[in-house]
Amino acid sequence: MNYDEIIKNTLDEHRYMHTKGVVDTAIQLADKYGADRDKALIAAYLHDFAKPLGYEESLKLIEKFGIILDEETLENPELLHAPLGMAIAKYEFGINDEEILDAIRYHTTGKENMPLLTKIIYLADLIEPSRNFDGLEKIREAAYKDLNQALIISMNNTIVYLIKKNHVIHSDTYKARNFIIRNLHRGN
Amino acid sequence: MNYDEIIKNTLDEHRYMHTKGVVDTAIQLADKYGADRDKALIAAYLHDFAKPLGYEESLKLIEKFGIILDEETLENPELLHAPLGMAIAKYEFGINDEEILDAIRYHTTGKENMPLLTKIIYLADLIEPSRNFDGLEKIREAAYKDLNQALIISMNNTIVYLIKKNHVIHSDTYKARNFIIRNLHRGN
Repeated sequence: MNYDEIIKNTLDEHRYMHTKGVVDTAIQLADKYGADRDKALIAAYLHDFAKPLGYEESLKLIEKFGIILDEETLENPELLHAPLGMAIAKYEFGINDEEILDAIRYHTTGKENMPLLTKIIYLADLIEPSRNFDGLEKIREAAYKDLNQALIISMNNTIVYLIKKNHVIHSDTYKARNFIIRNLHRGN
Repeated sequence: MNYDEIIKNTLDEHRYMHTKGVVDTAIQLADKYGADRDKALIAAYLHDFAKPLGYEESLKLIEKFGIILDEETLENPELLHAPLGMAIAKYEFGINDEEILDAIRYHTTGKENMPLLTKIIYLADLIEPSRNFDGLEKIREAAYKDLNQALIISMNNTIVYLIKKNHVIHSDTYKARNFIIRNLHRGN
């Protein structure tokens, strides 16, 4: 399947450029950390496939696909595209690989005990070349040295950002961060 | 029961002064927000009763009292005195009032959907006169205006502090924060 063409025809230019950046970055990280680069490519191409959909339409599709979501995700329009993207990858693109599906599903919040590919897509989404936010360089630098450190820095960033905005922080993000820190303290 | 005398004879001077501060502050907040001031007094006097105990001794007592704790609490010596304090209040002081026990149990982490007395002891512990830390004045001021705002500010403070220290964030703390923010957004 020519994912590049499909994505180019589906997403607007800005989102297509972002996605291309995630693809390139995810492949670099996959090569560095020994993940499957073909899976990284597919997950990266599809990670934001559901992003252009509006909130109401997303909710309808979530119901159609029978996706069970927690209240925290359901009430946050920013988060729906991740589980919905997973369902589209599965039911419309016929992808059954659990690693790819997990990486799409958790690319915005992270989750407890993230598999390698999920970590890679999570970070590639944040550090791809077209991104620009405070603290980005630190995460980018860490990503090519120590994946877990980069994840901690980026989750710390996210949590502090949400605190400043007075927003709810998704439990998956806390769990992801706590899990990594706990394992680092134990020397794993 | 003369709690003041018991606490004076059990805790060192520094902890006794802190406890007295919590008692006075908790009573002020109870009066302001319509909580039971007698319960506030007992919970405040006993909240740190288990604090002088060492980690090993605390673990032994937790086993003796049959307290079931999550891993997050068990691995953090700073947190054990709260559930242990609850057990001592219950089994050694014969306190069966659920509001008092809950307030002692959750005074360090908070919890999802905190009862009024638990909110009061949580905040009184932080803002009593002998406390001194960055951001305290903002919490103190808020506590006498809007209990939930004061809780959000203090939990934000705690989370940012734990992030700076690279520490795990207890799930009860983020659940407490998310619960309050979600209800404020809904106008509750």
